[in-house]
This record gives sequence, C-alpha cells and structure tokens, in this order.
Amino acid sequence: MESNRNLCFQAILAYLFSPMRKLTHDEIAQKRVKTDEVETAERIPVTVVVDNVRSLYNVGSIFRTSDGAMIQRLVLTGYTPQPPRKEIEKTALGATISVPWEYVKNPVDAIHSLKEQGFKICCLELTDRSRPYYAMHSSDFPLGLIIGNEITGISKDIVAASDFAVEIPMFGVKQSLNVAVAYGVAVFELSRLWRMNRSGPCPP
Amino acid sequence: MESNRNLCFQAILAYLFSPMRKLTHDEIAQKRVKTDEVETAERIPVTVVVDNVRSLYNVGSIFRTSDGAMIQRLVLTGYTPQPPRKEIEKTALGATISVPWEYVKNPVDAIHSLKEQGFKICCLELTDRSRPYYAMHSSDFPLGLIIGNEITGISKDIVAASDFAVEIPMFGVKQSLNVAVAYGVAVFELSRLWRMNRSGPCPP
Repeated sequence: MESNRNLCFQAILAYLFSPMRKLTHDEIAQKRVKTDEVETAERIPVTVVVDNVRSLYNVGSIFRTSDGAMIQRLVLTGYTPQPPRKEIEKTALGATISVPWEYVKNPVDAIHSLKEQGFKICCLELTDRSRPYYAMHSSDFPLGLIIGNEITGISKDIVAASDFAVEIPMFGVKQSLNVAVAYGVAVFELSRLWRMNRSGPCPP
Repeated sequence: MESNRNLCFQAILAYLFSPMRKLTHDEIAQKRVKTDEVETAERIPVTVVVDNVRSLYNVGSIFRTSDGAMIQRLVLTGYTPQPPRKEIEKTALGATISVPWEYVKNPVDAIHSLKEQGFKICCLELTDRSRPYYAMHSSDFPLGLIIGNEITGISKDIVAASDFAVEIPMFGVKQSLNVAVAYGVAVFELSRLWRMNRSGPCPP
C-alpha cells in the first residue's frame, strides 16, 4: 500500500519534471475515430452549404476541416466542384470519404430544405448586422452554415434569406480571410460551443 | 421634437424589418486599417515562428491570416520559403507588406531570443500535455506561437523547449488540420482573448 503510494508519487513527479513530449502517429491514431466507426460516430448538428467556391484546393481543405469538427454534412452548390477530383483529394486527404456530402445545384433549394427541417441559417459574411463568430449561441443549433465564393462571398439573395450572419473580426488592411481558413475559425467555434453545452462548463 | 422622435422610431423599424444587407467593398474598406496607417496600428503581442513549412501557398495564407489578426511579427525559420515569391503572393494578397517578418535560419535561436524578451513559448502541436486552443489565458501574453511542417509538425527539440502546447480538438478520422487552417483557429482565439481582456468582458 505504502510502496504503491510512493510509486504513484514518483510517477507524478517524473511526469511533471519531464519535458513535454510530442505524440507519435500511433498515439494520435488511437485518439481518433476509426474508419469503420465513422458512420455511427457523433456529429455536431451543423450542415454546411458551400456555394460557388471555385478552388479545388479550398474544397478539399473544407472537407478535411469538416472531418476534424465532425459536422453532419456538406452540401456543395452552384459551381463548387465535387469529388472525385485529384486536386480536391490533395488537400482533403481522404476526408471526402468520412464527411457525408451531396450536390444541390441551387443553394436556395438547399437552404429551404434545411429551414423545413428546423435549421437556423447563418451566413459567414460581412453584413450590416453580422455578429462576431464567437457570439453564436447554443440556441442556434441545428445550424445551416453558408460559405461562399473566394472573391465575391455569399450572394445577396442568400444573405437576405439567412436568419443571421457571423464574421471574423479583422484588424489589418486586408478585407477578408481565405474561405477555408475563415470556415475553420467558425466551425471549430461551433464544435467547441456544441460540445461545451453538452458536457458542462467550458474549461478556463 | 415629436416629429424627430417619429422619424427615429421609423428608422429603427425600417432597419429591424429590412432584410440583412451585405456590405459593399467600400464599406468594408472603411472598417480596415489603411495602408499608410499600418506601421502605427495596434498589434496583439504575439510573434509567430513558422518553422519548416514547405508549401508556398500555406506561407502566403499564413501572412494573410496574420494581417487579419494583426500579430506583431512572423519569424520564418528552417526551410520555410520567404517573400518575394509569386506563389506566396497568390495567397498572401499583399499581406507580405503589412505583416512585419524576418528570416532566422535556426528556430531555436528565434525561440531563445523571444524568451529573453519575456515571451512565453507555445507550440501548436499534439503533445502529452497539450491544452485545447481555447484554454489559453491572458497571462500567456506576450506569446511566441510556433507552427511547424505540414507532415511532421514541430520538431521534438522545439516541443521540449516550449513552455506549453495547444491543440485543436479533433473529432474525425484525420490526424490533423491543414497548418494554415489550424493557425487561423489558434491566432483568432488569441486575437479575441487579447482584445477581450483589454476592453472588458466578452460578448455573450
């Protein structure tokens, strides 16, 4: 009993005074969802409409990020390219398999369908009443998040059809972020928000 | 007096019941720092060390994101490519001008220099004791944030030399995010944290 306590104490001391250690590939893999578990794994109640995103690399990156946050589904609309394309795979790295997706030509149809299912619609866009991305609420779930074209953003009619908009507060000279980066910032906030409200208060 | 009140009331009603409106390019430009103000504009006390990031497009994206969050400085180390390169400009879109940067061959030299200036050193990496990215504190400023290679991440010796590590909690099958996306998630949390602590409580 006494020797067990000593061993435990020594192990804690060793951990506290050892340098921080990078995890190995296998250690990380153990923390992840396995490929054969992905169909039943938990997903956050967020469907993302990707309208008129032109770059194949951005679409691939959006798939990879969507896997990381484990959103429900991607809806590709307009001229957004669809898998399989080798340029999408270059940045998606297999996430086109783990993230459910569909193609709907008209984004307004996709939005109406989400509204009928009880989703609130949020566009990631600079509007006359956008909230900061960190001012979303747990009452905003289930959420349909819209992201748009690299240059022109989300079209005016989709903005007008949305329930609200969020933006990433910007402090430099550039107008906006790359769409795949902006999406990452917004969707990981949604991931944090959903999981925090499901499992108690946020860590400090 | 009475008619002014009526006009004001009507304007509020018109705003509340009008559809949300996308900002124009000029309206957004008015909210941004002007090119000739960039040298004196406020920056968050964060210097980012970009070690061995191979892709020119990722480096450009990191510049663009750094402009958006208005960090102090980028330190490019190892084989991270440096401006001017047309592929960097393709994704930086001019942010190589607005974001101060320097090249230091050895990342450990850059880290030691930051430590001497009183910076805490944080690596964005999966380690045996990484915190979630949203568990950084205002006491962590001024902060040296390290980001590393697209495939292999941050080298073991840099991890061991860091004060702490943060990670983006991942819930899918993929091991990690694209480095430019992960950096965006982390640095905008730092931007939010710094500006929140400087100007009162966080919006709801």
